Amino acid sequence: AVAAPALAQSNPKISWKMTSSYGPSLPPLYSTAELFCKMVSEATDGNFSIRLYPAGEIVPGFGVMDAVGNRTVECGQTASYYFYGKDPAFCFDTAVPFGLNARQMYAWVYEAGGMALLRELFAPRNIVNFPLGNTGTQMGGWYRKEIKSVSDLQGLKMRTAGFAGEVMSRMGVVPQQIPPGDIYPSLEKGTLDAVEFVGPVDDEKLGFQKVAKYYYYPGWWEGSAQVSLYVNDGAYKELPKTYQAVIEMASRAAGGKLLGDYDANNPAALRRLIAGGAVLKAFPRDVMDAAFKASDEAYKEFCAKSEHFKKIHDHYMAFRDSVVPWFRVGEGSYDNYLGIALANQKK
Amino acid sequence: AVAAPALAQSNPKISWKMTSSYGPSLPPLYSTAELFCKMVSEATDGNFSIRLYPAGEIVPGFGVMDAVGNRTVECGQTASYYFYGKDPAFCFDTAVPFGLNARQMYAWVYEAGGMALLRELFAPRNIVNFPLGNTGTQMGGWYRKEIKSVSDLQGLKMRTAGFAGEVMSRMGVVPQQIPPGDIYPSLEKGTLDAVEFVGPVDDEKLGFQKVAKYYYYPGWWEGSAQVSLYVNDGAYKELPKTYQAVIEMASRAAGGKLLGDYDANNPAALRRLIAGGAVLKAFPRDVMDAAFKASDEAYKEFCAKSEHFKKIHDHYMAFRDSVVPWFRVGEGSYDNYLGIALANQKK
Repeated sequence: AVAAPALAQSNPKISWKMTSSYGPSLPPLYSTAELFCKMVSEATDGNFSIRLYPAGEIVPGFGVMDAVGNRTVECGQTASYYFYGKDPAFCFDTAVPFGLNARQMYAWVYEAGGMALLRELFAPRNIVNFPLGNTGTQMGGWYRKEIKSVSDLQGLKMRTAGFAGEVMSRMGVVPQQIPPGDIYPSLEKGTLDAVEFVGPVDDEKLGFQKVAKYYYYPGWWEGSAQVSLYVNDGAYKELPKTYQAVIEMASRAAGGKLLGDYDANNPAALRRLIAGGAVLKAFPRDVMDAAFKASDEAYKEFCAKSEHFKKIHDHYMAFRDSVVPWFRVGEGSYDNYLGIALANQKK
Repeated sequence: AVAAPALAQSNPKISWKMTSSYGPSLPPLYSTAELFCKMVSEATDGNFSIRLYPAGEIVPGFGVMDAVGNRTVECGQTASYYFYGKDPAFCFDTAVPFGLNARQMYAWVYEAGGMALLRELFAPRNIVNFPLGNTGTQMGGWYRKEIKSVSDLQGLKMRTAGFAGEVMSRMGVVPQQIPPGDIYPSLEKGTLDAVEFVGPVDDEKLGFQKVAKYYYYPGWWEGSAQVSLYVNDGAYKELPKTYQAVIEMASRAAGGKLLGDYDANNPAALRRLIAGGAVLKAFPRDVMDAAFKASDEAYKEFCAKSEHFKKIHDHYMAFRDSVVPWFRVGEGSYDNYLGIALANQKK
């Protein structure tokens, strides 16, 4: 046999499959996964190729955790809070009520010890997790009627789930599980009162403003939402170190695109939604206060029930309580001043 | 001659030098450049190595643009607004008064056309520019006396330069150029009234709170400050495409670390500064308004003087005016609510 050149050993031809919880109908999310695959290929001269499949093609959208864990595919793109039913602690990898904003989340994960805790959480699932971007603060959803106070939430039939649904049910909301295709007719008929999705760019495609025109903010259950890359741990260990480094780097680099894409394109999408009849509203203060209180109660319960939930919770919340006051100083005062100054200039 | 294996052609051994405007005394900035070099090496199995030099070792801190342009070194880390004297338009690559915050800057550069404009600006200097992170909103600096209104700025001797100095001088401030080592004694003697630097993490090392205890925010001239990687265009063109892709990816990936590092570590640094005597103050509204007005005048003058300044200005400001109102909706309302809720909880 002819010995392979030394270089070939660090650059083997490897082909992976990646399954996503999203598809091309959600461009910022899906194109972030596409960019990740492209970056991995380009950095390895095409030797490490990852083929991306949209939700449902080889694995259902909510099947990513199992499919990666059992190596049906080597990797996947998803949001960990979809797996709230398996373990509420997974929400700390995506979003929790009154949690960190996008910058704070990045800082917690990469620079304040969050990653080690999350890796520990995913290890028993045979998954090595990497952040793959963030959506930023999401909107509070579409409502058929105005929410003037917390009493308007009593009996409100809202399509929501997971940790958000848990907290909302404590506030009187009746969370509904409805297939995506049924949301619009249900809002139209009034068998559904409200629905939450993402933000202007993604919401625009759904046309909810025609049947539930009140568009509330902020989505206090998603002050930011981190998207994740799951890699099967066995497949990861088999990679040469160079390819492992490329995955880490590409996940960071491609992840930046997601937030940038939303930030660049949400403003025009919101303007179009408003022109098309959406009525933009802030949640009343008493709704926010009730949500904050209900979240606090839910956290206490979850911490009492699960030691590992409590371990991540305490670390995450200590970081939040330290970083949020600082953000009010420089960032907050700057953003607030500039927002007001530009609004006054227009008058 | 023996033909080299095909793989070797895409993985040649290449060694570059990188010079920085910073040194190890500014850990978030310098360690971002270190991480960039590490990522490039790891992604290429050590075949593409970039050796980093701190400011002053082979090139002075403010010599990065010339050194990269004439290929004294192949690449460098710097902030483009240091080169205001060569061309005020370079500030759009870092920070301008009442400009974009860190997330907005990222979105403008990568997702809204900013990069093409900046590349055009740097091309005549033989430089291919890449963002290499952001500091976030900087502080407004250290002042010996309280600034109660804009009249307290009249005749104020402040260490500042560039675009900020230009605007401040319109507000009555007398900008001073003083070598770093002379700042502390000058503040102590009172021959200097104020100094601006970065934010808590970097400011803490300088001890200014002992001689100029009023610590103002926000740094309206640096709502965020992007740091840049400059690559000599000839050196860049000689790279295999794989290495070009690795540079782009590593600059995005390592760049994220800078903001994360500041966000994670500024809160504790600020608490220590306050414990050590710093008095945290917001600029009064009339100072902010005067700064906004003076900036507007400076922009008008610069646009009238330079076509290419105007071209970038108009694009950048159109993006700002579109994105800032959107940030007030979701992000702003969420951050503001959470900040207040956590402050009330402590009481």
